[in-house]
Amino acid sequence: MVRCPMIQIRFIDERMACHFNIVVEHCYQTCLFVQPNTLGYKNSIFISPCNAGIHRKRLSCDKERTVQYLLCSTHRSTSSQSSDQHNAISSLGIGVIGCGRIGRIHAKTLAQEAGVKLIGVADPIESVGRQLAEACQTRWYGDYRQMLQDPQLQAVVIGSPTSFHAEQLKYVAKAGKDIFCEKPISNDLGVIDDCLQVVEKANVRLFIGFQRRFDTNFKAIKAQVEDGSIGELRMFHIHSRDPAPPTAEYLANSGGIFLDMTSHDFDMARFITGSEIDQVFVSGNAFDDEAKQANDLDTVIIHLRMKNGSMGTIDNSRRCSYGYDQRIEVFGSKGSLLGNNISPNQVIWSNDQGLHQSRPHSFFMDRYEKAYVHIMQAFLEMLRKGMPSPVDGKDGRAPVVAALAAARSWKENRPIALSEILQKAQR
Amino acid sequence: MVRCPMIQIRFIDERMACHFNIVVEHCYQTCLFVQPNTLGYKNSIFISPCNAGIHRKRLSCDKERTVQYLLCSTHRSTSSQSSDQHNAISSLGIGVIGCGRIGRIHAKTLAQEAGVKLIGVADPIESVGRQLAEACQTRWYGDYRQMLQDPQLQAVVIGSPTSFHAEQLKYVAKAGKDIFCEKPISNDLGVIDDCLQVVEKANVRLFIGFQRRFDTNFKAIKAQVEDGSIGELRMFHIHSRDPAPPTAEYLANSGGIFLDMTSHDFDMARFITGSEIDQVFVSGNAFDDEAKQANDLDTVIIHLRMKNGSMGTIDNSRRCSYGYDQRIEVFGSKGSLLGNNISPNQVIWSNDQGLHQSRPHSFFMDRYEKAYVHIMQAFLEMLRKGMPSPVDGKDGRAPVVAALAAARSWKENRPIALSEILQKAQR
Amino acid sequence: MVRCPMIQIRFIDERMACHFNIVVEHCYQTCLFVQPNTLGYKNSIFISPCNAGIHRKRLSCDKERTVQYLLCSTHRSTSSQSSDQHNAISSLGIGVIGCGRIGRIHAKTLAQEAGVKLIGVADPIESVGRQLAEACQTRWYGDYRQMLQDPQLQAVVIGSPTSFHAEQLKYVAKAGKDIFCEKPISNDLGVIDDCLQVVEKANVRLFIGFQRRFDTNFKAIKAQVEDGSIGELRMFHIHSRDPAPPTAEYLANSGGIFLDMTSHDFDMARFITGSEIDQVFVSGNAFDDEAKQANDLDTVIIHLRMKNGSMGTIDNSRRCSYGYDQRIEVFGSKGSLLGNNISPNQVIWSNDQGLHQSRPHSFFMDRYEKAYVHIMQAFLEMLRKGMPSPVDGKDGRAPVVAALAAARSWKENRPIALSEILQKAQR
Amino acid sequence: MVRCPMIQIRFIDERMACHFNIVVEHCYQTCLFVQPNTLGYKNSIFISPCNAGIHRKRLSCDKERTVQYLLCSTHRSTSSQSSDQHNAISSLGIGVIGCGRIGRIHAKTLAQEAGVKLIGVADPIESVGRQLAEACQTRWYGDYRQMLQDPQLQAVVIGSPTSFHAEQLKYVAKAGKDIFCEKPISNDLGVIDDCLQVVEKANVRLFIGFQRRFDTNFKAIKAQVEDGSIGELRMFHIHSRDPAPPTAEYLANSGGIFLDMTSHDFDMARFITGSEIDQVFVSGNAFDDEAKQANDLDTVIIHLRMKNGSMGTIDNSRRCSYGYDQRIEVFGSKGSLLGNNISPNQVIWSNDQGLHQSRPHSFFMDRYEKAYVHIMQAFLEMLRKGMPSPVDGKDGRAPVVAALAAARSWKENRPIALSEILQKAQR
Repeated sequence: MVRCPMIQIRFIDERMACHFNIVVEHCYQTCLFVQPNTLGYKNSIFISPCNAGIHRKRLSCDKERTVQYLLCSTHRSTSSQSSDQHNAISSLGIGVIGCGRIGRIHAKTLAQEAGVKLIGVADPIESVGRQLAEACQTRWYGDYRQMLQDPQLQAVVIGSPTSFHAEQLKYVAKAGKDIFCEKPISNDLGVIDDCLQVVEKANVRLFIGFQRRFDTNFKAIKAQVEDGSIGELRMFHIHSRDPAPPTAEYLANSGGIFLDMTSHDFDMARFITGSEIDQVFVSGNAFDDEAKQANDLDTVIIHLRMKNGSMGTIDNSRRCSYGYDQRIEVFGSKGSLLGNNISPNQVIWSNDQGLHQSRPHSFFMDRYEKAYVHIMQAFLEMLRKGMPSPVDGKDGRAPVVAALAAARSWKENRPIALSEILQKAQR
Repeated sequence: MVRCPMIQIRFIDERMACHFNIVVEHCYQTCLFVQPNTLGYKNSIFISPCNAGIHRKRLSCDKERTVQYLLCSTHRSTSSQSSDQHNAISSLGIGVIGCGRIGRIHAKTLAQEAGVKLIGVADPIESVGRQLAEACQTRWYGDYRQMLQDPQLQAVVIGSPTSFHAEQLKYVAKAGKDIFCEKPISNDLGVIDDCLQVVEKANVRLFIGFQRRFDTNFKAIKAQVEDGSIGELRMFHIHSRDPAPPTAEYLANSGGIFLDMTSHDFDMARFITGSEIDQVFVSGNAFDDEAKQANDLDTVIIHLRMKNGSMGTIDNSRRCSYGYDQRIEVFGSKGSLLGNNISPNQVIWSNDQGLHQSRPHSFFMDRYEKAYVHIMQAFLEMLRKGMPSPVDGKDGRAPVVAALAAARSWKENRPIALSEILQKAQR
Repeated sequence: MVRCPMIQIRFIDERMACHFNIVVEHCYQTCLFVQPNTLGYKNSIFISPCNAGIHRKRLSCDKERTVQYLLCSTHRSTSSQSSDQHNAISSLGIGVIGCGRIGRIHAKTLAQEAGVKLIGVADPIESVGRQLAEACQTRWYGDYRQMLQDPQLQAVVIGSPTSFHAEQLKYVAKAGKDIFCEKPISNDLGVIDDCLQVVEKANVRLFIGFQRRFDTNFKAIKAQVEDGSIGELRMFHIHSRDPAPPTAEYLANSGGIFLDMTSHDFDMARFITGSEIDQVFVSGNAFDDEAKQANDLDTVIIHLRMKNGSMGTIDNSRRCSYGYDQRIEVFGSKGSLLGNNISPNQVIWSNDQGLHQSRPHSFFMDRYEKAYVHIMQAFLEMLRKGMPSPVDGKDGRAPVVAALAAARSWKENRPIALSEILQKAQR
Repeated sequence: MVRCPMIQIRFIDERMACHFNIVVEHCYQTCLFVQPNTLGYKNSIFISPCNAGIHRKRLSCDKERTVQYLLCSTHRSTSSQSSDQHNAISSLGIGVIGCGRIGRIHAKTLAQEAGVKLIGVADPIESVGRQLAEACQTRWYGDYRQMLQDPQLQAVVIGSPTSFHAEQLKYVAKAGKDIFCEKPISNDLGVIDDCLQVVEKANVRLFIGFQRRFDTNFKAIKAQVEDGSIGELRMFHIHSRDPAPPTAEYLANSGGIFLDMTSHDFDMARFITGSEIDQVFVSGNAFDDEAKQANDLDTVIIHLRMKNGSMGTIDNSRRCSYGYDQRIEVFGSKGSLLGNNISPNQVIWSNDQGLHQSRPHSFFMDRYEKAYVHIMQAFLEMLRKGMPSPVDGKDGRAPVVAALAAARSWKENRPIALSEILQKAQR
């Protein structure tokens, strides 16, 4: 973050820059492009510092050609070189299963990406499916299996309710298509393992939809941890609090707070530390009526020991009066990184009562609005480059193991080694 | 901002909320919607506090129906009521003149808005025009006058280079179409007045593209000033600094820093104070080679007296090492409002050298990315509701008068009343 | 904090305000006083908002007389009323045992307080004792028991090394003097209980020197928690990190990190929550050589369950690259309070690398410089008003119990209920 | 600030560090000292980063002896080397003229400084003078001229009302004593020039009491500007706002806002830029009754051009609802420095209304509490080392010239070159 000055890239060949946007490879942030003939900046782009760690590496290993680039959505090149690249890209045929909230988000992102052909969207509810298909100018399928028969289809996004994930995932894998699957694959370890075996056998790639890994703050923290900015990682704290509890009915069927809520934070713990969870210990309480009625907890602190010797905590609350609280602190031998909340504006109002600022964003759909776009772009990049999945089946499985351990720790008031859960699972 | 708690709206009729996103009227911010059947939030939406002033007013005058709503882009309703609204909206036929940077931004926003038919994009350079037309799935016109003959066309966005604005604006006005015109109409007062007369005679609406008025921070400041949050407005400071100077060639043809750069800040001064500029006084210098070679200034402070008795300053620099600096402070009898810069991330890195944060955004295209969308949505709202233009011809003219006064103040080292410029213009 | 506007108090009788400083009762912060005849503020004082909770209460219950006041150090009144008060106060004779670092701090504070007569300072090392006595213009005693024979002596401050606390405390208590004793009384529960019995029997008051309770941030948090600002307290996090580890020799004789370092944080947990610790669970590691050599830990996270149902964490590190990290977050049903670090300056330096701020203070002597003054002033107030001790023997004992439980938790990798330690202690 | 890591100094000779505090030369901040035998830090001190620029320079030019040191107040050394130094220092005999608010502050600081003998305090009002003398354990003089006859007296602090400054300053100078004089010497240029001639003739040193130069934030900014941290200085903004207006009677006799209030900010402009003011231009208004009645202004913006080509603004208000607003921003070719306000605490309260922080300090006596100590320590250092005055007569005169120019600019609504005032003064 800090060591990367603002980059002003000057192109040798002005025509290269002239009529299309440029995005630095691996950087899913909108990147600033200034046309030379409009504002007087000759052959220049300015690059935001948000993903500086990543920028820097790519740029430094590619000095001669100055910058790698990908064509952005709806920006077409006129140069032959770019056209070729464009053609290669445009062959990506993708289908979306599930037209609910998350399916819609992904379908719309795909519809706006250059080089992507949205083959169709599948949902058993016709009105819902047709509506999304129309909005994305694509076809609706009542049965996703039909969609899989389109010869152009190369990959599938599974955004259906969790209970359908396993069946669909296995079917798609057997059809030989790469998969983006929303988390969790399942809340049942046996089911997950069954799925992962099918995926492995089918030799397809599986990308699990942990979108927080693509949040601007957490991505920057990860990059700096890997850069060695804070030396040896020693402790971490993950604060993850929802604005208001769902209904007791929802909670009663959610699998409990550890599977429903903490599992995302277990993924963050693994992502940020680059290590596996060794042991968990839990305290909790049900302060509000919803959790009490559902015989669940609404406030928990999970204490983690990682295999690399670091330790940390996750705290969750179902009721956070000031909005959606999503912060991470990582502490190391040479420094710390604190990812604060993101707010809708940056205005400070001073009066005789003090200084006042806006609350953070309200919930996951405004906090992670861009992360949902970035994760889909990462999936496309994986497909285009033949890369292995950056968030694979193992990453989908590990948080479920940790959640099961946490539930047992709460029940038995003792630390639970994850190996204890795994041994039981193997039996 | 502060007095508006997070709003959790419960719908009486669940079906209303079920299958589409909801945006509170006048709020161009993506608004959080949580489906009742997915997360257990029954008939609820959470609304971000970013535009709380506006939210509050609308919501309070509309208690019974709970919330006004507009359909979002690509979100279609299944209910008959919404469908009707959708049909009414979908008749908006709009064309874009100019396929350069800003034309592309507006065309793409329009192409993604529900209820808008992008009739075409016009640009004399075929490759540029065709590229944009293809990306937006619309038609390219080499001559914008041909586009105007489409009977579905109701309004036009002028995003061509400034030198073409006046001619196109007059032609479009005479054709009876409402107009969104990029700033400035012209740098010549006589030309502007000529245009405004044509617009008035043609009885069309003119919306000037001052996108900063739709920036999340400045919009929030304006709302709080109008709410009386800071009492009587007494002073203001506008800081507006570019990351790096353009070439001397560009500067030499830019009309000078006051027309090219400060004019946007003169608009902010009028917007925030709700008053007209009475007098300006200027200090300046050319520190860098580009401005020296162009016989222009690159660093200026403009001292303003407003007609309402308040006073303020604008400062501009062509070279701001830490990025694009766009801040406003407003000071009143009961408090102050400070709109800080917006940064790509919110990470604080602490080490033995101190605490470090990311620079602000790099330039106007990342800082004002959302403001460009919001201003186009405001234009659409004006069209749909038959409202008068919120940023009209007078708003386009005033900053040019102020810029001319500033240039004279610099030349003659004395304060210049704007009336002096106007008198001369009338002669 | 927020609900207390700046108070401008107007005195009815100007002479009251004219020639001495005024400090609002219970407020150990330097309070702003503006003389009416100098700056044109008639009979006015401005009061800082730092202790607003406390201010507000006192002021509201005392509207008629406008403000309670105490004479400040070195400010003498000329009015007869104040003189009387002054005379009453000046009878406080206090002695200090131990002329090391902490003894010096307290002796100097006492020497500068109005209404205090520093009877003497006691230390077996003559050079050290004489030096401090001279600086404070008082007498040196080689044997503190001699000092106790001064008939003017009313109270004693014990600032000697911990190993002498118990013996001295019992001797002073038996002599019938009120006591300020530095923490800890002892690291041995049996010894502590013995001391507390003597204190109780002697019917003297005992004030334990937990200065963090008088830190401007933690005091403000406590006041707001008690005000109900955050509703029901549900979670807390205490971050407490030293800049660099002491030597292995020191660590080997320190009693271990839980007694030496965490015990201060256990006190904070009890102070902020207003509840007793029920159970602790610990993770830890020795990352640096000093702790490894001493067979101690240098990085620990302690997980706490409180008797009131809230839960929290303490984290400690012996090596914090960016200085002395002392933060507390408290989370409740209606909000949260975050006490950040205090820095030597508030300057933000922006350049092409980002935004940079000063590190927090380096260590406890700059972070808690004012807290040490405030705690001594609180001790004086207790003496003057005949109040019970605000930080009594029970408060001195509880953190030791928690530290012993933490040590066992680490050893046995299981949660330890504090009752388990207490039962053992009773046996 | 940023480039200076926390310094851990290890002493070769433990005894050097053992029994006294150490303050790095030129650093008037309390410096952290950790005794080796108490906390296990062998021969170490930690130094706060507040004055890092200054620290660094001194330390780097003095590597072998590790650190320069001065004995602190009330800390006496046992080593012979220190004793010698102590004896040399203790010969400083100083008297204070004026026992009002500011005289008391300085007298008390001097009474607590090691190596200073406070000869006496002088005030014609006996009760006031005796009270302060008693508090400082020194002698009261009704006539300051008597005090000057004490053969031990080496320097004098003039803290009387402004109308007495000139006469006293000249008398003291003629007596051959070095002088610390509160600002302003006079509001009459002729009187100032007369005084400065006497001072020059008498060959004594004159230190003007601009305490803001010794504020932790402004001192840090100055150090970084001189370090080249922001490259070439191009613009600055000084915000200086009082919490509430004094009475109309006071204002009517204050000399007007430019002399009474802005003159301190003119000094800041010269201090921060290291350049002289070339021209001023002013806007202003009287919003509140006090200024209206006094025929004065209460809100002004002063526009400055400096001789080095930089430009800036000062804004003043007599009514700042949120307390005492004292901020400076300096902008240069390579970065900017922003000195924010200082607050009584660092607590952030989050609730459903937003995030809330404490207001800044209330007024100059809490904001500049430490600056008043630091300036007196700087005066002592000047005396001890035979250094020239860091804030001399020229510095006392320049802000008055600027204030007179500002008053004329307001009257005549035109920019006023300071040379115009000087020429008139010379006639």
